[in-house]
Amino acid sequence: MIKKLLIANRGEIAVRIIRACKELDIETVAVFSEADREALHVQLADEAYCIGPTASKDSYLNFTNIISVAKLTGSEAIHPGYGFLAENADFAELCKECNIIFVGPSAEAISKMGTKDVARETMRKAGVPIVPGSKGIIENIEEAKMLANDMGYPVIIKATAGGGGKGIRVAVDEQALVKGIEITQQEAATAFGNPGVYIEKYIEDFRHVEIQVLADSHGNVIHLGERDCSIQRRLQKLIEETPSPALDETIRAQMGDAAVKAAAAVAYTGAGTVEFIFDHINKKFYFMEMNTRIQVEHPVTEMVTGIDLIKEQIKVASGEKLPVTQDEVTFNGWAIECRINAENPEKNFMPSPGKIEMYLPPGGLGVRVDSAVYPGYSIPPYYDSMIAKLITYGATRDEAIARMKRALSEFVIEGISTTIPFHMRLLEHEKFVSGDFNTKFLEMYKVMDS
Amino acid sequence: MIKKLLIANRGEIAVRIIRACKELDIETVAVFSEADREALHVQLADEAYCIGPTASKDSYLNFTNIISVAKLTGSEAIHPGYGFLAENADFAELCKECNIIFVGPSAEAISKMGTKDVARETMRKAGVPIVPGSKGIIENIEEAKMLANDMGYPVIIKATAGGGGKGIRVAVDEQALVKGIEITQQEAATAFGNPGVYIEKYIEDFRHVEIQVLADSHGNVIHLGERDCSIQRRLQKLIEETPSPALDETIRAQMGDAAVKAAAAVAYTGAGTVEFIFDHINKKFYFMEMNTRIQVEHPVTEMVTGIDLIKEQIKVASGEKLPVTQDEVTFNGWAIECRINAENPEKNFMPSPGKIEMYLPPGGLGVRVDSAVYPGYSIPPYYDSMIAKLITYGATRDEAIARMKRALSEFVIEGISTTIPFHMRLLEHEKFVSGDFNTKFLEMYKVMDS
Repeated sequence: MIKKLLIANRGEIAVRIIRACKELDIETVAVFSEADREALHVQLADEAYCIGPTASKDSYLNFTNIISVAKLTGSEAIHPGYGFLAENADFAELCKECNIIFVGPSAEAISKMGTKDVARETMRKAGVPIVPGSKGIIENIEEAKMLANDMGYPVIIKATAGGGGKGIRVAVDEQALVKGIEITQQEAATAFGNPGVYIEKYIEDFRHVEIQVLADSHGNVIHLGERDCSIQRRLQKLIEETPSPALDETIRAQMGDAAVKAAAAVAYTGAGTVEFIFDHINKKFYFMEMNTRIQVEHPVTEMVTGIDLIKEQIKVASGEKLPVTQDEVTFNGWAIECRINAENPEKNFMPSPGKIEMYLPPGGLGVRVDSAVYPGYSIPPYYDSMIAKLITYGATRDEAIARMKRALSEFVIEGISTTIPFHMRLLEHEKFVSGDFNTKFLEMYKVMDS
Repeated sequence: MIKKLLIANRGEIAVRIIRACKELDIETVAVFSEADREALHVQLADEAYCIGPTASKDSYLNFTNIISVAKLTGSEAIHPGYGFLAENADFAELCKECNIIFVGPSAEAISKMGTKDVARETMRKAGVPIVPGSKGIIENIEEAKMLANDMGYPVIIKATAGGGGKGIRVAVDEQALVKGIEITQQEAATAFGNPGVYIEKYIEDFRHVEIQVLADSHGNVIHLGERDCSIQRRLQKLIEETPSPALDETIRAQMGDAAVKAAAAVAYTGAGTVEFIFDHINKKFYFMEMNTRIQVEHPVTEMVTGIDLIKEQIKVASGEKLPVTQDEVTFNGWAIECRINAENPEKNFMPSPGKIEMYLPPGGLGVRVDSAVYPGYSIPPYYDSMIAKLITYGATRDEAIARMKRALSEFVIEGISTTIPFHMRLLEHEKFVSGDFNTKFLEMYKVMDS
């Protein structure tokens, strides 16, 4: 087993990883930017080192400084968390060259899943359903026109190197397609250094449903059920839950199998998530992408399966076998996560960094808080605005929602604006309560007055 | 279902009950003494009323004021929590007369279990194992001598009206027996207004193991497994866990059956606990007493069964049937609770009331905090010194312990002394880790340096 581990991240996920390490009796090394001297992860780790100035590119993305700290402290492994270097194949490769265990999949698996058209083709070959569309990059416009006509409009044009909602354009007719391909290719060449685009049938009314997978280095791959992350604002997830209110047992089993196939197709190891577009009207699902890292919303899966995903990541990275077979995985109850951001929901979610004057997280049965803030802590304006994840668990969806409302009502954060009032309103919304919604929920329904 | 409920208590259990009510959409009425104006339960309830001065007898034990507030606010029910009026048969009876639902068993059940020799005789008739001893109150000294000779010394002399470690005396020979009975009778007459004493075989080396029961008003009684509360200091529990490391499946099933019999014998309703002396050397158990109320340590049972005991108390009091049959009760994993007291473990656990300058409870997977304090709150010196219950859950005992150590290490409470350092040491103690100990653990082993 790994004895000392460096956490190449900040915020709640750094704290989450330190907690898992403490429980596994692994020594922890934190790294921090100059803006993060007072951060909780710095205080909780056994050792902590400054790796550079405030800007992420100079600190949390600084390969050399991070590897140097790992080497100097005798850290055998690096956990990248999510974001920053978590899906950087070059960094994973560099770790390997430096004889440091990268807690995550191989550089090859990261690369294959990180290039959209390669991932799409790999999935097609593996028998994972993909959205109808072009086989690889669009080489000439006539081919694209024919394909779009066959599929029917609207179609979506995607830059293969794009991501996070960038390099995407919808075309409603042939004219828009021709123009859209041209513009997207130009933009992608500039933004990502790769002009390649492909087209897909555009599915407008869908739910975002993803499957958590876990794989070891001995060829075992299992899935831990789904998460429904359809409640999004500008492609940013706000609420996640498991199980999904939209899946029946048949679809659930098929989606789980597809995710296991997807992971196996790239010889995946560790924890990963296969995201699907779920066409809930026609009960069909299609591969969207695979996130080759732990995800923000992993706690809901932990609550219903009882499996500690961060510990399993570390154990798999240490060479251990998975603790259970697929048949041994059990699912109990319902879990929901609300992301609490330092943003003002009444002012178009404008970031609200600053000093937390008073802080009292909720407690009691079925309530979990993953956070890295404390009373008196000043949230720096330079990084992600998420300051806490509030997770509730209940025997049923109704109980998990009631508990979330109770927990949100207790949560005291003074000195800054947060998304707590937004969540309170959303959880009262009859459409949310019904469980019947798609990814356009926040475009379709007014939640806040502003 | 009850629509409005008064909580006749303070501290963490008042907060716990308010939380359950909020999740059940029940309106809450808090009551408080003059010393508790700033208490968290006062802030969290929908309404709050002062019921008298600081002294418990004038406020939290004040029948008239509490009933008056219930009547004036239109509260249909009163939840007594634990302590104060929770096991007061007269109060339960008064509620009934005033047409208020007492969330607990009938006054008759409270009375029968509250009088030790009656409880003992009721259990004997119900076929629940009791410690060998006198059949009822000692009427003459010769009878006591004969019985003690038959059983063998040491024997224990107990005042039938005693409790909480008072009115108890051990006799090692006949001379001590004769003298002990005389003194205990005199003391009991003065202290409890009832001179009745009885004798029992004294079991020295035992574990305190108790069974949680749940009964509805339709004749259904189930048990929710055991809690091991052997780690005690002067008869006060400090750490509780479930399952017990000392029970095997046979004993567990027998003890569960005995607890169900005990509850049924007094037509019990609601949540209750049957406490047993477990002679772990000879694998025999004996009825100790039944607590006719919710207990401090109820959360560990909730963690492994997934059943919300406070909600079930309220549902049963509303006339609902139990949610599950005995066969449907499932037990998963291991849960441990540490009671965090405002006491200085380095100064013989001297109470340490005062202002909490900094407060940050631990979080993350498998950690639950039940508390009623907050940053800036002043702990009054007048009531119980317990300020938080820290509960951890894990797949195994080792994981629950590792998580507890991690959570204790994160728990920030500044401005007062707490028992956190004591728990940290105890959880490192190899005898505790082995699971092999009895109720004399803290007499036998040095935990703190002082």
